[in-house]
Amino acid sequence: MNKIIVFQTDFGLDDAAISAMEGVSYSVSQDLNIRHLTHNIPQYNIFDASYRLHQAISYWPEGTVFVSVVDPGVGSNRKSVVARTVTKQYIVTPDNGTLTHIDRFIGIEEIREIEERTNRLKNSELSYTFHGRDVYAYTGARLASETISFEEVGPLMNKEDIVKLELYGCKKIPNGVMGQIDILDVRFGSLWTSIPYSDFKACGFDFGDDILVEIYHDDVKVYSNKINYGKSFADVAINEPLIYMNSAYDMAVAINQGSFSKVYGIGVGSGWKITMTK
Amino acid sequence: MNKIIVFQTDFGLDDAAISAMEGVSYSVSQDLNIRHLTHNIPQYNIFDASYRLHQAISYWPEGTVFVSVVDPGVGSNRKSVVARTVTKQYIVTPDNGTLTHIDRFIGIEEIREIEERTNRLKNSELSYTFHGRDVYAYTGARLASETISFEEVGPLMNKEDIVKLELYGCKKIPNGVMGQIDILDVRFGSLWTSIPYSDFKACGFDFGDDILVEIYHDDVKVYSNKINYGKSFADVAINEPLIYMNSAYDMAVAINQGSFSKVYGIGVGSGWKITMTK
Amino acid sequence: MNKIIVFQTDFGLDDAAISAMEGVSYSVSQDLNIRHLTHNIPQYNIFDASYRLHQAISYWPEGTVFVSVVDPGVGSNRKSVVARTVTKQYIVTPDNGTLTHIDRFIGIEEIREIEERTNRLKNSELSYTFHGRDVYAYTGARLASETISFEEVGPLMNKEDIVKLELYGCKKIPNGVMGQIDILDVRFGSLWTSIPYSDFKACGFDFGDDILVEIYHDDVKVYSNKINYGKSFADVAINEPLIYMNSAYDMAVAINQGSFSKVYGIGVGSGWKITMTK
Repeated sequence: MNKIIVFQTDFGLDDAAISAMEGVSYSVSQDLNIRHLTHNIPQYNIFDASYRLHQAISYWPEGTVFVSVVDPGVGSNRKSVVARTVTKQYIVTPDNGTLTHIDRFIGIEEIREIEERTNRLKNSELSYTFHGRDVYAYTGARLASETISFEEVGPLMNKEDIVKLELYGCKKIPNGVMGQIDILDVRFGSLWTSIPYSDFKACGFDFGDDILVEIYHDDVKVYSNKINYGKSFADVAINEPLIYMNSAYDMAVAINQGSFSKVYGIGVGSGWKITMTK
Repeated sequence: MNKIIVFQTDFGLDDAAISAMEGVSYSVSQDLNIRHLTHNIPQYNIFDASYRLHQAISYWPEGTVFVSVVDPGVGSNRKSVVARTVTKQYIVTPDNGTLTHIDRFIGIEEIREIEERTNRLKNSELSYTFHGRDVYAYTGARLASETISFEEVGPLMNKEDIVKLELYGCKKIPNGVMGQIDILDVRFGSLWTSIPYSDFKACGFDFGDDILVEIYHDDVKVYSNKINYGKSFADVAINEPLIYMNSAYDMAVAINQGSFSKVYGIGVGSGWKITMTK
Repeated sequence: MNKIIVFQTDFGLDDAAISAMEGVSYSVSQDLNIRHLTHNIPQYNIFDASYRLHQAISYWPEGTVFVSVVDPGVGSNRKSVVARTVTKQYIVTPDNGTLTHIDRFIGIEEIREIEERTNRLKNSELSYTFHGRDVYAYTGARLASETISFEEVGPLMNKEDIVKLELYGCKKIPNGVMGQIDILDVRFGSLWTSIPYSDFKACGFDFGDDILVEIYHDDVKVYSNKINYGKSFADVAINEPLIYMNSAYDMAVAINQGSFSKVYGIGVGSGWKITMTK
């Protein structure tokens, strides 16, 4: 039974970068089970890296080491850290906001700054652009394989000091809720919002209700329609929209076998707000 | 030596869905060897899921558990099943046609309906849209790791009752054969037909023959030309077309180092027929 | 601790080809750790296959077996070979130039031609188009699992006789160096040149210098500007260009959080030359 280490980056799968990270890890120890969360995080998108980590982490066993490298500040003075969650999992990452969702929704127990003098691939000192290989994969593999302990990563940091992105969350409004469109179910074009199922449910909505959905882009209303709240896509006809609770237990909007995002030109991020009201 | 489980979906690799399926599986047992057939099945395309399973399965060892989730009916009353083939491999899948090629060309020995009360990830009862994680990966991992036996999956089904897609197969016509363009060799644009090598060979064709190829889209002829029958692409000049037997032992049409599909605008599926005649 | 075998192809990940290669390998031995370098080598691009192998190989442990299949000549009389490097790693590949970078920058100790009568998947004799599965994966898996020894691969070849691509390398010119744009850092659009850091450094350039970069397409100058030489992207403002040493220790040109290749329409290969001068 090999120790599990899970990689996530925005490097894509078209070149040898991920393979170099794997090779470095297996050169540390061949008793590792290297897995891949995704390497298709949109380039430089720290919010998505933070979101995807949170989307996956609770399904993995205690002790799993995650290495997430979306690192537009590589070579700057941003810190490199390892966080241990209250659920006893580890995240190796630049301290640039990648820990935002984990910190908010899972909880960080302890965080250490990586001491690069001791935790860096030998003979990589001249390399300034690939810390994913030289620092993060190397340290993650050493930690996962118990070549080093968590304490040997480096000194404790104050966990209040980590870089955090702003999360919009969910606001109560008259007769409903307001949230942000956080991210897409990429392949299917569904909108995943920041409105938790519990807040939505607290408004008194029930399966079968027609709910008024309004979407704003930079405060301009770009969509307004009643949409049925169903359990799953099969509750509506093909090409019909629905509101549903997604697999992350937040509210989402989709078109059955279509792409809501493409059909209505809806994007994601802080400029995109959505309301669901009676 | 870990037990092998092979995932296939239409979820893509851009988000955390596959990672959640892996995490659920490793939380069942870390003594698993999780592999990936493809996650780029075109969305909702059950035919392709069925085809790709068949294309791969015979190369895998006895006992391999396949989990295939192309599931446009998630949340409807479509059944969830596990089939055991005559070659002692398992397929965990919605019963929506995904077993069509396996049933026809390999043979199903026994099939059981998944009893979801006992075979479902704990605390996932509210989740209606991700049976890939909550039911299929979970059940596949429990079966592969021998946490449950095949019998514990659920009650036997009548194997005649599974949902089957129509397969066009191969028709004998004067001086040749007629088939359907089933699928593409995606990256290279070659046309893979439903004409088995044996039926083609029975027409008396030999390497080096120029064979009349005609392609019909909804009964309208869209291509007609003599194409040489070769062993491999290197038998013709670059940018020249050829007929060849593909790696699934069916007849195919390609352009050497080009894309036949793109150059001539040829698609796949029940609307696309092809004849090869003297 | 399973033996490592690393696959690289231009087959993409959209169909069942890679899964068939994995299945063949695990049918040889389940005590293998199958990894993937990339399957997105541009179709038929032997130079890129050679480059990516070199980019990854030195990070992997001794004894690792690489199987690289970019094989436009499949079915022709091109040879199939296994090379052992001076670093005791193996590459299983068609002899079509794929070994060029390994031969030049790592060193081949011994090379053997694959004897296909003994090293070919049983009952695959009729299959002429998928040596990746029938010959290369099969032989790689047998070698990695020690089912066969290196000697049993087939007869020794003269290592001077392998097919080699031309490498442009680096020319000294007045006040600087001239090289070729070999390849892109695909996802980020940075230009990776054939100019080694050592040759660049020998010109006396230092961090912070503004260096004249000129790019030629088929001898026509298509770009000319002074660019700052930095350690990493963070040394310049977002959307500013920089020269830096890439993770393969060659000189590269990028735009911080942009794509140099797209913005200026720069390509790769023998038609694309670049100079860096004072």
